[in-house]
Amino acid sequence: MKQPIPTNPMSGFMELLPQEQIVFNQMFDIIRKSYELFGFAPLDTPVLERSEVLLAKAGGETEKQIYRFTKGDNDISMRFDHTVPFARYVVENYGKIIFPFRRYVMGKVYRGERPQAGRFREFYQCDIDVVDIDTLDLGFDAEIPSIIYYIFKKLGFEHFTIKINNRKIFNGFLNSLNLSDKAPNIMQAIDHLEKTGESNVRKELEDAGLPINKIEALFQLISIKGTVNEMLNSLQSLNTEDDQFKTGVNELSIVTQQLNNLGVPSENFKIDLSIARGLDYYTGTVYETTLDEYPEIGSVCSGGRYDNLASNYTDKRIPGVGISIGLTRLFDRLYKKGIIKTKSATPTRVLVIPMSNNNTQTSLVVATKLRENDVSTQVSFGDNKPKKSLAYANKLDIPFVVLIGDDEESQKKYTLKKMLTGDQEQLSIEELINKLKI
Amino acid sequence: MKQPIPTNPMSGFMELLPQEQIVFNQMFDIIRKSYELFGFAPLDTPVLERSEVLLAKAGGETEKQIYRFTKGDNDISMRFDHTVPFARYVVENYGKIIFPFRRYVMGKVYRGERPQAGRFREFYQCDIDVVDIDTLDLGFDAEIPSIIYYIFKKLGFEHFTIKINNRKIFNGFLNSLNLSDKAPNIMQAIDHLEKTGESNVRKELEDAGLPINKIEALFQLISIKGTVNEMLNSLQSLNTEDDQFKTGVNELSIVTQQLNNLGVPSENFKIDLSIARGLDYYTGTVYETTLDEYPEIGSVCSGGRYDNLASNYTDKRIPGVGISIGLTRLFDRLYKKGIIKTKSATPTRVLVIPMSNNNTQTSLVVATKLRENDVSTQVSFGDNKPKKSLAYANKLDIPFVVLIGDDEESQKKYTLKKMLTGDQEQLSIEELINKLKI
Repeated sequence: MKQPIPTNPMSGFMELLPQEQIVFNQMFDIIRKSYELFGFAPLDTPVLERSEVLLAKAGGETEKQIYRFTKGDNDISMRFDHTVPFARYVVENYGKIIFPFRRYVMGKVYRGERPQAGRFREFYQCDIDVVDIDTLDLGFDAEIPSIIYYIFKKLGFEHFTIKINNRKIFNGFLNSLNLSDKAPNIMQAIDHLEKTGESNVRKELEDAGLPINKIEALFQLISIKGTVNEMLNSLQSLNTEDDQFKTGVNELSIVTQQLNNLGVPSENFKIDLSIARGLDYYTGTVYETTLDEYPEIGSVCSGGRYDNLASNYTDKRIPGVGISIGLTRLFDRLYKKGIIKTKSATPTRVLVIPMSNNNTQTSLVVATKLRENDVSTQVSFGDNKPKKSLAYANKLDIPFVVLIGDDEESQKKYTLKKMLTGDQEQLSIEELINKLKI
Repeated sequence: MKQPIPTNPMSGFMELLPQEQIVFNQMFDIIRKSYELFGFAPLDTPVLERSEVLLAKAGGETEKQIYRFTKGDNDISMRFDHTVPFARYVVENYGKIIFPFRRYVMGKVYRGERPQAGRFREFYQCDIDVVDIDTLDLGFDAEIPSIIYYIFKKLGFEHFTIKINNRKIFNGFLNSLNLSDKAPNIMQAIDHLEKTGESNVRKELEDAGLPINKIEALFQLISIKGTVNEMLNSLQSLNTEDDQFKTGVNELSIVTQQLNNLGVPSENFKIDLSIARGLDYYTGTVYETTLDEYPEIGSVCSGGRYDNLASNYTDKRIPGVGISIGLTRLFDRLYKKGIIKTKSATPTRVLVIPMSNNNTQTSLVVATKLRENDVSTQVSFGDNKPKKSLAYANKLDIPFVVLIGDDEESQKKYTLKKMLTGDQEQLSIEELINKLKI
């Protein structure tokens, strides 16, 4: 016997019900509108790229995860982030772009990871970056946390913390300890701090061959806590003699001092010297954002400053700073925790119900008038009894219905029923429009 | 020597500049908002599906075009339309969906065709469908042209024609001529009418073995022209004795008579008996839409009624009606013809320019206030001379700049300059907000 074809989506691919999709889209729209409010222009690059473009920089884990295939003569891969396509785009359109170039992109990216709980193979990344030629002012680094703040407020959160660090501090500190050659290993170990705890990280560093006194010194650095000003003072009082270190502290100071002017309350950001953002890609300011009440979700918005966007494709130096929101994962976590609640399963504001087939024509006229006034409207067609239509409105959570029978037609007053309360009133078409317009 | 990595997108993949993307997104948003206005709920299915799902129905040309590959144990394909994933979705979520189910989906689909001028391998399809269980009222068929009408008006078009036909008319007519077994060939030939002309189609039909008198009869049918009422009369006066034919004429009559109530002017739709929509998938009403001034673009919005959405995945009978707008192709054609014009390369409404670094703090405060009032704002950072910042605003087509120097700071009146006219005025922050708010 032929096996039935499975109809569930493949593992790692999120697929929502309409009531869920509506909430997802609301979040998507808030992020998009926020990015535009800060002057970022939209871009949309292809999901498919030449493999040589995507693999120019990727390696190891990333490369294994890529969906790669051939079609005809083409060696093709699916994008696994928006940064690599952006780098290609900037080089390709270098002569047409106006710098500093601010762009946002919000689309699906693909990673063929082994399916794990909460890991997605297809997910939305919502990115902004601003890039310039040769140098990019530090002001842009300060602006980024104000964008994060604006978005998470608009998404309805009160208690979240934007954690800021500067890679130069750590790199310079390692340099002063003659540990620069071990920097990648150390970064990686430090990145595990929150997950595995201090003793495991110490062990990892010992295994990497670090002497105890240097591990001590590292922990002295990353255990600096306090207010922004206290931490900046503590950093200065380490008296670390390294130019990179000093530049990093200075940059961190400038960035954090600007946030007040940019309207970010001090309770919504802090310096966190343990943030390394594993990728060697970042070279200066780095960001992570956590929801205070749900730290287990991890960072919901991360990014940082990089010295050179497109070194694989051009000799031009294109520094930038950017962040990314993994919307699929964020939605999934918040929804499963019950923090996000669904409401209606339709954008429909009103269902027009003809009491019998005789009233269909007038119902269409009324529906058309409502739509012309931007009121989302459906009409009940067919031999549906009004009762069945009311049940439909109820199930979909449509807030209003308009009932049109012979009485309504002759008086040109239509019955508006508010579904939540059951209240009814007789209204002319103009009154109906005024009532239902948002 | 190592070849440089190509940075252009692959052939058949559209990639836009920001000023183009902004216009594309405006069109996208109009379509989305329109679909929601008519009560359609959003869905978003994965780009990747099990190959057995996508290939259950596909065959021939479609199958050759599919991007298909394996990853681990999975045989995966990229969706080539939204209908097949929708069918799978409806079966999977059958118990959770409220019928009649109205959904829209707007996303990229993939066809690895040979690249030809104006053919895309990645393109946006913007679809709506309404499906019900066992039967779907004909009222939904009438509603579809009113949605098409609404959208193309909102997109800025005056002169376009929604062509409507009913497959039952043609099928019934063929049946009355004992030609049902040749229906697919005949359909296909008729579909070529506009491209290749009558004599070629006659030849094609002769080659398919049709006797001359039956070809005559076919052309008698498809050459019926006139107003909607004239054509319906002509169809009736053919006296074709076939139930399917009669049902088709009756349905076409009901659908077209409703359009007046739905606000579709008679100059924007007509009956066109030559529309077959090649796919055997459609079973009743079919639609095509052409822009009167640009017939060479072909149909910009097509669709129709189908008896059974998901016969590959379920025994349940799920009839529906839907349409699709190929936005990538539509944008491409209109843009290349110069019908679509680009404007600004940024959503930014105002650029705040500190006259010197001393004025950066106040500039950030002003920018933050503007953003809090939904005014899209950028700040000029760094040692940019105001002149350079003005040039930036000019190139990006940002309509306003706010200049902030020491005088402005001390008087708390900021200089607003309208870029188009050069007009300047001194305004308080409140006045600035009122002036720039939309």
